[in-house]
Amino acid sequence: MIHFECDYLEGAHPAILKRLIETNMEKTPGYGIDIYCEEARKKIRKACNCPDGEVFFLTGGTQTNATVIDAMVSRSEGVIAADSGHISTHEAGAIEASGHKVLVLPHDNGKLSANLIQQYIEKFYSIETHEHMVYPGMVYISHPTEYGTLYTKKELEEISLVCHRNEIPLYLDGARLGYALMAKDTDITLEVIAKNCDAFYIGGTKVGALFGEAVVFTKPNKIKHFFTIVKQHGALLAKGRLLGIQFDTLFDNNLYFAISKNAIEMADKLKGIFEEKGYKFFLKTPTNQQFIILENEKMKQLSEKVTFSFWETLDESHSVVRFATSWATSEEDIEELRKIL
Amino acid sequence: MIHFECDYLEGAHPAILKRLIETNMEKTPGYGIDIYCEEARKKIRKACNCPDGEVFFLTGGTQTNATVIDAMVSRSEGVIAADSGHISTHEAGAIEASGHKVLVLPHDNGKLSANLIQQYIEKFYSIETHEHMVYPGMVYISHPTEYGTLYTKKELEEISLVCHRNEIPLYLDGARLGYALMAKDTDITLEVIAKNCDAFYIGGTKVGALFGEAVVFTKPNKIKHFFTIVKQHGALLAKGRLLGIQFDTLFDNNLYFAISKNAIEMADKLKGIFEEKGYKFFLKTPTNQQFIILENEKMKQLSEKVTFSFWETLDESHSVVRFATSWATSEEDIEELRKIL
Amino acid sequence: MIHFECDYLEGAHPAILKRLIETNMEKTPGYGIDIYCEEARKKIRKACNCPDGEVFFLTGGTQTNATVIDAMVSRSEGVIAADSGHISTHEAGAIEASGHKVLVLPHDNGKLSANLIQQYIEKFYSIETHEHMVYPGMVYISHPTEYGTLYTKKELEEISLVCHRNEIPLYLDGARLGYALMAKDTDITLEVIAKNCDAFYIGGTKVGALFGEAVVFTKPNKIKHFFTIVKQHGALLAKGRLLGIQFDTLFDNNLYFAISKNAIEMADKLKGIFEEKGYKFFLKTPTNQQFIILENEKMKQLSEKVTFSFWETLDESHSVVRFATSWATSEEDIEELRKIL
Amino acid sequence: MIHFECDYLEGAHPAILKRLIETNMEKTPGYGIDIYCEEARKKIRKACNCPDGEVFFLTGGTQTNATVIDAMVSRSEGVIAADSGHISTHEAGAIEASGHKVLVLPHDNGKLSANLIQQYIEKFYSIETHEHMVYPGMVYISHPTEYGTLYTKKELEEISLVCHRNEIPLYLDGARLGYALMAKDTDITLEVIAKNCDAFYIGGTKVGALFGEAVVFTKPNKIKHFFTIVKQHGALLAKGRLLGIQFDTLFDNNLYFAISKNAIEMADKLKGIFEEKGYKFFLKTPTNQQFIILENEKMKQLSEKVTFSFWETLDESHSVVRFATSWATSEEDIEELRKIL
Repeated sequence: MIHFECDYLEGAHPAILKRLIETNMEKTPGYGIDIYCEEARKKIRKACNCPDGEVFFLTGGTQTNATVIDAMVSRSEGVIAADSGHISTHEAGAIEASGHKVLVLPHDNGKLSANLIQQYIEKFYSIETHEHMVYPGMVYISHPTEYGTLYTKKELEEISLVCHRNEIPLYLDGARLGYALMAKDTDITLEVIAKNCDAFYIGGTKVGALFGEAVVFTKPNKIKHFFTIVKQHGALLAKGRLLGIQFDTLFDNNLYFAISKNAIEMADKLKGIFEEKGYKFFLKTPTNQQFIILENEKMKQLSEKVTFSFWETLDESHSVVRFATSWATSEEDIEELRKIL
Repeated sequence: MIHFECDYLEGAHPAILKRLIETNMEKTPGYGIDIYCEEARKKIRKACNCPDGEVFFLTGGTQTNATVIDAMVSRSEGVIAADSGHISTHEAGAIEASGHKVLVLPHDNGKLSANLIQQYIEKFYSIETHEHMVYPGMVYISHPTEYGTLYTKKELEEISLVCHRNEIPLYLDGARLGYALMAKDTDITLEVIAKNCDAFYIGGTKVGALFGEAVVFTKPNKIKHFFTIVKQHGALLAKGRLLGIQFDTLFDNNLYFAISKNAIEMADKLKGIFEEKGYKFFLKTPTNQQFIILENEKMKQLSEKVTFSFWETLDESHSVVRFATSWATSEEDIEELRKIL
Repeated sequence: MIHFECDYLEGAHPAILKRLIETNMEKTPGYGIDIYCEEARKKIRKACNCPDGEVFFLTGGTQTNATVIDAMVSRSEGVIAADSGHISTHEAGAIEASGHKVLVLPHDNGKLSANLIQQYIEKFYSIETHEHMVYPGMVYISHPTEYGTLYTKKELEEISLVCHRNEIPLYLDGARLGYALMAKDTDITLEVIAKNCDAFYIGGTKVGALFGEAVVFTKPNKIKHFFTIVKQHGALLAKGRLLGIQFDTLFDNNLYFAISKNAIEMADKLKGIFEEKGYKFFLKTPTNQQFIILENEKMKQLSEKVTFSFWETLDESHSVVRFATSWATSEEDIEELRKIL
Repeated sequence: MIHFECDYLEGAHPAILKRLIETNMEKTPGYGIDIYCEEARKKIRKACNCPDGEVFFLTGGTQTNATVIDAMVSRSEGVIAADSGHISTHEAGAIEASGHKVLVLPHDNGKLSANLIQQYIEKFYSIETHEHMVYPGMVYISHPTEYGTLYTKKELEEISLVCHRNEIPLYLDGARLGYALMAKDTDITLEVIAKNCDAFYIGGTKVGALFGEAVVFTKPNKIKHFFTIVKQHGALLAKGRLLGIQFDTLFDNNLYFAISKNAIEMADKLKGIFEEKGYKFFLKTPTNQQFIILENEKMKQLSEKVTFSFWETLDESHSVVRFATSWATSEEDIEELRKIL
């Protein structure tokens, strides 16, 4: 059995484990004020070319989204997101549980457009009774999106412009950010993200860490008591250094980028094999997630030898399935897949 | 510099790291449905002699308290706790953030008494306007308490009786549970806890794990959609097996108990040294936390060579400080302390 | 200037004012336990042929929706509603503010269909990761809908069946219920509603009262501490009898039905005038709200002599506007409108 | 039977009913933007000598407290209140339900002291781990307090100073404000309150209105989208003019003050009678609530002829009870009481 159902099947990149072992019996203060967190913060600020950015480490994606949104969106406001956005679908109502409505817009292969956002906001303010409605108080995008697609620099800048013209923050969910940054032909770098977003997170869980997400607030002193809000959300890790050590390792010597590149290369090969074998794509993406159309019979057959995730029903006899590579996918996995197909 | 300021200064017990390394490149499904979690659940159910218990793994203590309380306490209800309880003081309002009032009662060295609880409930229902007030919907205790003290089996049974007579669940916060179970002369075992509580958690973060708390619901099928509530609280770890592996290791061959015992033995030696040197105790406890009275001048002096935590001001010239041992405290640490004192 | 912009322009039906004056200096206990509330409850239970129903009086619609939904929907659940539903749009996020996601389905002239609901629920449970999502925990419908349309008895029974087959409650928002009950050719009575819904409210604010909505839980003892949840939502009126007196008057001698009938008759005449004058309808409804298509120029002109509400833009040169009649609309108003048109 | 159990036993002052009748069939826009609300706002701003103040009308006290606190207190903050404060005890957890902890301090006959508040805040910031705790984000006081007692101008100024030195708002609950303003020898006027508080409300429900509380924010443009937050809390009355008309009437020709004065005069007579008859006071207050000590036997006897509220048990054979006068208490009521005693 080979596995392509998601990008968090293994533990951590060996370099991370090594550092955890080396530092294991050191005694450090808790809650993220240790030297490893400090070092990781420095490296991340540098990688983002955002010297004044504030960096916090949390444990998982839903937790990070709920905490950041709750901290940045006021009581009367909601968060604009694609209807395919992770916060709109797969976070068990975590955003609503802290009191905020998710204001959904239709996605285009997982993406929001600046135009659509602008139209939504304009329409909102044009409604006479808009004071009876939830104000748009943030825009949430994911990059890569849940469909593995990417924004271009121009698209991101346009969304950023719309946000800032309307005085609402732009927040980018980077659960799989490494795979976006290492995609071929992308013109979005960490620096571009830091320039255009008010907050974003660099995903660790899906890119080589045991767990962990690094939140960056690009403008300092914007959030009152964020540490306390993290604690309130149950998102403050006691042994905070575990997050510091992981991100320090990932941002040492560009490891984060190198291992992300592996996922992209493996995805390219995987795409090649499917193409070669004549499979149809529902969506071919520049990142580590590929969406293939399978006959249901074939799907059943295949699932005996390889894991993947069911995405959606296409028609009565066909389904869309997702294959994901990761930092850990090996040439052997790919070769094995070739044989199976 | 030697360190006694808390019991989560190091990483994990080496046996845990070893298992994490061995299993690192295995591919398992996420969110706690892997074989390691399954195995850990079995061992915990057995250790508790609670074959029908439901076991869930969460990451940290505040998160666990907020999630369990939110799942068990209804909209119109609050949770009774000692005013010294962790949820009353050091959780940044996490309980209130999910809508529940903490109903505080005065503590006796960190403990609640069955009598006080019964009186509170009786008084509540005797108030004509009690329907305008928050109903008592749960009792929260910690064992050991925040003061390092322990309930006796009789005390726990009495509290349990009061709870069940009044049809509200009893929840025990076991952040440092190992140190309670291994205390000398205690008659409270895991089995006793499982018999008397509706829910409790076995703390990993402070007892040898990198992180992790094992929640046990002692009666099956009581909580609707707990998995989803965990997710909603941002408390669902993607690579759930990390928790399974840690608890499987801790409950393998009684490791959890063995390493907890070390903390107790080291605490005994530490108490001995302070006694021998003529220090006054604010509170001498059977567990891993000891509370010493220091002259402020002495406190300052000492803090240059050893770390401890400031607990509270006793009078103008004296302070209460806390020394904590842990699974990782060594004879060398203790000897060094002797020299310093 | 004549007014058709909404159905809550005036104070109360004179009979209500009269009763308020007569009873003004009586001294009664607060919070809804007075004889007027008791009497009103009896009359409502009788009118619904629901002898075991529990009746509570609240002040306004959004408040009632938020309180009832919060009381009936558990932490892990959301509420299914049409995307045009009042809770989906014009309640400023009140449902989310108490932690519940509104799960929107596309409306058909304001209505939900049993099929769509069943499909949604089936799809939800077929998704492998549905435990990461918000469970459907209630169905919310409004009758009349926000578009003035009505369910048939058959449609309501089908929705009820879907709900109960899936073990979730059905809740009906009757902000304008009188106008539904008095519509011509409707086969839905209060009794039919009580038989098919788990909870509903009989709107007073828009049907002759100064304010007030009567919530009916059709099955007794289902909601724990509802009184306290009302208080918690800031929805408990101190002088509760004001609500009792109003509903007692409305349900005395069928006043509620008689005055609702007036709105329907006036709406019929209003429809006749618009038809006669050759106006196009966006939606002609059996209740008190009518949706007319106006050229923008005409709309501007008209708005100098008559008030109505802008509903939506139809195309560049046309708009949809809403005319509402009410219990208070007079023949003179209608005649005046005829002259203006 | 004569009634002294609370100050909201009757409907409204006849002048209010008169205005409601006169205006009943007028057609006005909803939600508080009508001319009556506008007029009432003007009068209130003038009475407070606070020309820039923002005035909103809500329906009841708990609702007002929950909405104002939620609007002014951020996510990481709680509200300091006396343990006897209405929000601490009798609001069914409404404050916590919107996510905020009530930080209780011991009361002195219902009052908080500036010193105690300052000490609490200083201690809070001195705690090393205060970032793990709920920040003090507001001070809540009631005037009169729940014990009928009053702050002096000096005390209020000191509390105000403490608040502003610590950059947190001061909020005053004036559910019975008229009875405070008309007390003899008080030096606190509406103007003094407006100068020292950031927000307060002028109670209508207990002072002559059918219902209604007028919130004053003394500094403009401090609260984002308050209207929307009111709506979100279910606190926006559709026929907002009902509140406008009531407060316009109350602040016309000083009616609010005149009718409040009646309660004080009647309370004075009531005190006189109890003194004369040799009863012991638990607390003799300058406002409309008086606390008498009764033997339990006597209490039972008395309760057959006069209503009052049980306050608390004093000892085995004695209870504390409360007698309240109001704007509606008559000389006849008092004379009747004299006869009974």
